[in-house]
Amino acid sequence: MRPYKHPTPDEFVLERVLYALSDSIRLEIVRHLAQVDGATCGELDGGRPKSTVSHHFKVLRDAGLVHTETAGTAHMNTLRRADIDGRFPGLLAVVLAQPPLN
Amino acid sequence: MRPYKHPTPDEFVLERVLYALSDSIRLEIVRHLAQVDGATCGELDGGRPKSTVSHHFKVLRDAGLVHTETAGTAHMNTLRRADIDGRFPGLLAVVLAQPPLN
Repeated sequence: MRPYKHPTPDEFVLERVLYALSDSIRLEIVRHLAQVDGATCGELDGGRPKSTVSHHFKVLRDAGLVHTETAGTAHMNTLRRADIDGRFPGLLAVVLAQPPLN
Repeated sequence: MRPYKHPTPDEFVLERVLYALSDSIRLEIVRHLAQVDGATCGELDGGRPKSTVSHHFKVLRDAGLVHTETAGTAHMNTLRRADIDGRFPGLLAVVLAQPPLN
């Protein structure tokens, strides 16, 4: 299986991070990952179809928010908190501090 | 001319605000408006076609970020800073504090 591609912090783009965070499902995944060391896609998909969730994980990876590693047949996801905080100080904290629902 | 519609702060949605900020042109408009009392669409369009810019202003209005008022033949835009800050504390400040370009 091919390893997933992840941008380096100097390749992060503010607009891409904001876009990745602008969807309820992706925001929920990020909120979840902020509270754990790591989680598999299965633990994060909320019972949604794999194709839908795969797309969301790709958007999160491409923005630099999430790191995915293949561990056997599972995919382990972690939040790239230090990388994002280093590049966009305060951004993730402020987004995560907002109440989850309107 | 019909007055523009603007959501009330309790209608603001975090994801919608993040989406509105996730585009370079819209982010540029917000950055500009953060530094002035108000600006016409013409002052903010950067020479782009009216149809393109109109869409971006609508996204910004629908998110609650921008207020547009018709003043004669001009449209005067202001940033709804107090409304956004009241609803999503710290969010706009942290986004505006990030360097504009990658």
